[in-house]
Amino acid sequence: MRQQSKIQVTVGDAVIGGSKPLICLSLVGAAKEEIITEAGLLVAMEPDLLEWRVDAYDKVENIEDCLTVLKELRTNICEIPLIFTCRIDLEGGIAKISRQKRLELITAAIETGDVDIVDIELCNDAEFVEEIRNIAILHGVKLIFSYHNFKETPSESFIYQKLVEAQTAGADISKLAVMPKTYQDVLTLLSATNKARNGEVHGPIVTMSMGEEGAVSRLAGGLFGSDITFAVGVKSSAPGQIPIKDLKESMVVLFRSE
Amino acid sequence: MRQQSKIQVTVGDAVIGGSKPLICLSLVGAAKEEIITEAGLLVAMEPDLLEWRVDAYDKVENIEDCLTVLKELRTNICEIPLIFTCRIDLEGGIAKISRQKRLELITAAIETGDVDIVDIELCNDAEFVEEIRNIAILHGVKLIFSYHNFKETPSESFIYQKLVEAQTAGADISKLAVMPKTYQDVLTLLSATNKARNGEVHGPIVTMSMGEEGAVSRLAGGLFGSDITFAVGVKSSAPGQIPIKDLKESMVVLFRSE
Repeated sequence: MRQQSKIQVTVGDAVIGGSKPLICLSLVGAAKEEIITEAGLLVAMEPDLLEWRVDAYDKVENIEDCLTVLKELRTNICEIPLIFTCRIDLEGGIAKISRQKRLELITAAIETGDVDIVDIELCNDAEFVEEIRNIAILHGVKLIFSYHNFKETPSESFIYQKLVEAQTAGADISKLAVMPKTYQDVLTLLSATNKARNGEVHGPIVTMSMGEEGAVSRLAGGLFGSDITFAVGVKSSAPGQIPIKDLKESMVVLFRSE
Repeated sequence: MRQQSKIQVTVGDAVIGGSKPLICLSLVGAAKEEIITEAGLLVAMEPDLLEWRVDAYDKVENIEDCLTVLKELRTNICEIPLIFTCRIDLEGGIAKISRQKRLELITAAIETGDVDIVDIELCNDAEFVEEIRNIAILHGVKLIFSYHNFKETPSESFIYQKLVEAQTAGADISKLAVMPKTYQDVLTLLSATNKARNGEVHGPIVTMSMGEEGAVSRLAGGLFGSDITFAVGVKSSAPGQIPIKDLKESMVVLFRSE
């Protein structure tokens, strides 16, 4: 049996940190119509969670347009919990958008009541993080604080500390994605995750080793304490993701008795 | 891409240590008829290798009976490479059979030309190992020297050293199966395997973390240097094995591009 998180995050029907790792699909369309069409396709694949990568939207800088898409998305995806993520180019995302504009966008999105979880990078300045945190708490929206490294896999203790740091900064969910150069790097990520789950991180954890070598972490990471895995629906949102159909079938084998 | 072994072992169509980990099914029937029926069922499941656990045979002490079954088995399984294993009770196997009788049985089996690989425990005395080694070399039969621990998972360096020790003793293939108490133990086994593959062990390696927690090692161990995984055909031969159909489907996901 996998070790559940000490504190779980429940959003609608989704228990994050519970007996099974959850599967999330990302909406990564650029045009509004594309995003809405994608949403319909992804819903049919029955993910546990959806993420809107608003940074991929071609009108991300227009808050009104973003909120219009968000409203339509919420209607289309019904009760599926939605993660709202605006990852800028410097963070490995797509949008070039100013700090102030991003803060306004995320705040406005939270205020609509149409998003359940917001994901921001832990490397943002403390004031930015604090402002988002306050508005999120006010509206009952949960927070993912994340760390990405698209170049390499840091040491086990660095990864462990980053997950603790996210928690200390007020994250409901600590997320970390790193790039392996070797299969040993994949084991380093899994080991750090397992130690965080059995150690100081009390809330849900989301970790992944990216790229081809790391694909196994997307399938089996749940055994070692990762509570959400991102799969490919229509298009992948990060390297190494597995198509949701294959992932579901293989996860049944590993999480059979849970 | 998984790291292949520096020295591969080719038996018929099976390349052990090659681009893909191979799947082996074990014959564990007690009565002759049962074993032969089981063989037919297992062949239909298209494993890469078959293992006859002769220690499960109810007439294991009668060498003539064993050879009769072996002959019939060979006819039934056609060209599928066959591992011949007589694991005694003290080694986690079934048979209570004397050292001398076992030596005679294995020697006779090798001499028939009907077995391709013989698996013996590394903990046997040096003279026993040496005798089997000489007769195996004479008949072109490959050797697995194995270490089992059904109680716990030793340290990473112990596991690494056991795999090296098997090679030093003359094994063509080094095998080790240990029992995890935690998911960290599973990572210890995978890490030791990966280091052996990239380190001093030049031939194929077979490792597994047993039990429910270790099942992931049977599916993904090939990424970290394990070259054969044992699946369930009709009956499992060790705890934590996955049914071959499920294992094949999930391995396609992990070893897609290889």
